[in-house]
Amino acid sequence: MTGEPRVTEALAEFLVASRWDDIPAAVRHEGVRSLLNFVGGALGGCRDEAVSLAAKVLAPYFGPAQASIIGRGERPDALNAAFLNAVSANVLEYDDTHLATVIHPAAPVVPGLFALAEQRRVSGAQLVHALILGIEAECRIGLSVMPTHYRRGWHITATCGIFGAAAAAVKLLGLDERHTAWALGHAATQSAGLVESLGSMSKSIGVGNAAKNGLAAALFADAGFTAADQAIEGRYGFAPVTSDSVNLSRITDGLGESWEILANAYKPYPCGVVLFPVIDACLTLRARHMPLPQRIARIVVRGHPLLRERADRPLVETGREAKVSIQHSVAVAFLEGAAGLAQYEDRRVADPAVRALRAKVAVEEDESVPVESALVTLSLDDGSAYTEHVRHGRGTPGRKMSEDELDAKVHGLAAFGAPDIDAAGLIAAIRAIDTEPDVPRIVRMTVPTR
Amino acid sequence: MTGEPRVTEALAEFLVASRWDDIPAAVRHEGVRSLLNFVGGALGGCRDEAVSLAAKVLAPYFGPAQASIIGRGERPDALNAAFLNAVSANVLEYDDTHLATVIHPAAPVVPGLFALAEQRRVSGAQLVHALILGIEAECRIGLSVMPTHYRRGWHITATCGIFGAAAAAVKLLGLDERHTAWALGHAATQSAGLVESLGSMSKSIGVGNAAKNGLAAALFADAGFTAADQAIEGRYGFAPVTSDSVNLSRITDGLGESWEILANAYKPYPCGVVLFPVIDACLTLRARHMPLPQRIARIVVRGHPLLRERADRPLVETGREAKVSIQHSVAVAFLEGAAGLAQYEDRRVADPAVRALRAKVAVEEDESVPVESALVTLSLDDGSAYTEHVRHGRGTPGRKMSEDELDAKVHGLAAFGAPDIDAAGLIAAIRAIDTEPDVPRIVRMTVPTR
Repeated sequence: MTGEPRVTEALAEFLVASRWDDIPAAVRHEGVRSLLNFVGGALGGCRDEAVSLAAKVLAPYFGPAQASIIGRGERPDALNAAFLNAVSANVLEYDDTHLATVIHPAAPVVPGLFALAEQRRVSGAQLVHALILGIEAECRIGLSVMPTHYRRGWHITATCGIFGAAAAAVKLLGLDERHTAWALGHAATQSAGLVESLGSMSKSIGVGNAAKNGLAAALFADAGFTAADQAIEGRYGFAPVTSDSVNLSRITDGLGESWEILANAYKPYPCGVVLFPVIDACLTLRARHMPLPQRIARIVVRGHPLLRERADRPLVETGREAKVSIQHSVAVAFLEGAAGLAQYEDRRVADPAVRALRAKVAVEEDESVPVESALVTLSLDDGSAYTEHVRHGRGTPGRKMSEDELDAKVHGLAAFGAPDIDAAGLIAAIRAIDTEPDVPRIVRMTVPTR
Repeated sequence: MTGEPRVTEALAEFLVASRWDDIPAAVRHEGVRSLLNFVGGALGGCRDEAVSLAAKVLAPYFGPAQASIIGRGERPDALNAAFLNAVSANVLEYDDTHLATVIHPAAPVVPGLFALAEQRRVSGAQLVHALILGIEAECRIGLSVMPTHYRRGWHITATCGIFGAAAAAVKLLGLDERHTAWALGHAATQSAGLVESLGSMSKSIGVGNAAKNGLAAALFADAGFTAADQAIEGRYGFAPVTSDSVNLSRITDGLGESWEILANAYKPYPCGVVLFPVIDACLTLRARHMPLPQRIARIVVRGHPLLRERADRPLVETGREAKVSIQHSVAVAFLEGAAGLAQYEDRRVADPAVRALRAKVAVEEDESVPVESALVTLSLDDGSAYTEHVRHGRGTPGRKMSEDELDAKVHGLAAFGAPDIDAAGLIAAIRAIDTEPDVPRIVRMTVPTR
């Protein structure tokens, strides 16, 4: 019809044909890590104001008790559960990131899988397989419309996330090629989310809808509800309508050979990515020298000009500002040996001790320092000085979070948002999910029992 | 922030400030006609395969019994009811049309109002007022992004309908300017729907979501869920993201003075608009001469070249094709004295008598005939010939449907899709809705009682 390659069909064929046995071990493992990071994010975010308010708005419309809300007590229908869990997982800006597209892949994809798993028999391997395929679909579709898709103003986690949610759900439902293509079509016609909404709670509606409507897309297709055959590449399909730089080969090239989930990164700190090497250096200096705050004379941060441009913010008043402040991040790292959610709360921003140390931080530009690196020099009142040079911040592509670091992140998130759950047990269960026959058991572990 | 006029804010102010007493009588009256046409469309469409299938897919997720489905027995939560009623009203392609934008305005706007009316005390005047404002908002926003919005591939009834649904709902909820602007923001970030989906059931998901998510936008805003302040005109707002020809003054110029609902047209026949004058001419010739089919020698249709280009289709096999066939429309008009839903059913297309008469129809192009006109010449086997010249087809802007014609349309639609309801009583009640204190009474009349 359009002369374009039939990528919707090709993607559907791949999703249907993919078998667990074909998935390389490293890809499976990254699937488990993505899942773990997702659950951590949702545990940390589940008490955020946006989540509680959304749950309150939707509660009068909840259907039968079908699915769990991670870290919370409500038990709504599967579609509303998918919405709320996606909001929780994304609301702290602490979820995973596919750097080439800036998509946060797991938040839209996993919630529908959890909701389906609570309604029908699904093994842990099936769930991880579906998650991997969902992330593959959403990131490849994202690559095909970047960079102009995001530049035009589309919030890509929402607009492409819905394809991931649909692709993952159809895999779990076991649909054939035709119905899978229809599900992608229903996802395409529901794809939405504006960059303009970032910075307000409205962003969460886009992410929640991606999960919910992506699941609905699969359910509609499963029932025989028809859709366009070329909903991605057609003349009036998703790609040409939302992008001025369509490259459809990004969807199909190397499908099943290269895996986008391997490029998925997890944030070690809930703040701007340019700050990661700075915080790493501060934590190392603190562990090594344990300076008393009153003995610190000066802390000099040296980094790429972009670091200064993005985050040289000595005076901050809210947690949101603090998340893009070098001075605040350095101060809390030295004072508390951590840069987690607690360190970016409004009340910590106002703390006199933090304020005093922020004032001792100076920032220097150095073109020769790559953006993923930083040098921090700690000067004490006795004239001694110590410099730490971090080449790759934790959580950047050159230094992915280790297993221990990821576990620690999830522990911290659980302690922050859902202290009543058994985080250690949950982490162990997710790490063994490949061989778990009873997925709902794991989902239930995310809910406080009291 | 962008230097653009703050149209989201201006529109919100208008919506909040508007009072029923300010609405001119002709506008109020057109509001009632739009409502009547909407209810007729939903009654006619409520048993369509897409509606029944969607109801089946969503039923397991229905919340508490809050709202009626027009013409049907289910009683889901308000959000799912809004979805299904919008699908019903639009599915036959028989709903109202705002010609300048090609928006079908009522289908996304009314369902949320009906659902809210069943939950809280709302007068008939309040409902019609909210409907008028919703249509005003959606059509003006549509005008601001046309023509490139549709040309790019956005299904404008869905993408702009959501603003209408949100605007109407906030009026009924009585929100202030700030919360109204947030509702428009939540609508903007959920706006979706691709032209690619037309021709498949997937189109209905876009229209259903416009109603449902527009209502949700208002409910979220009502609860204090924040949104962008300039969601329409902002740098990454709805208008610049979805259009390459933004004209924001179309939203604000003459707001409260000129009314888009006055340009709303209702289809007298469920087929292509170019066929309307042709069918009118045939019905007049039939009424005047009552020719026996076997005595008809030839029927010649003369019209603008566009008529031939769009609808010269002598051989048709499905109802869908018949809706853009001059030959079929002429044949059924002469044989049955009607061109309603029954005349475009698949089995009527296969009827030998219809087929025989279709073969006697010829089409002639005439550049001098305007596109809203047509001439039809009936030649009988005794050599006699009669010509009827229709200057403005019914349902075109130059000849809007009369009150009797609209009532007859609704009667026909009810008989087609919901024969068990009291259509006459319902039509009378809607025509008197301005003074109706009990809107739920009218909504209940749309539901079969058995």
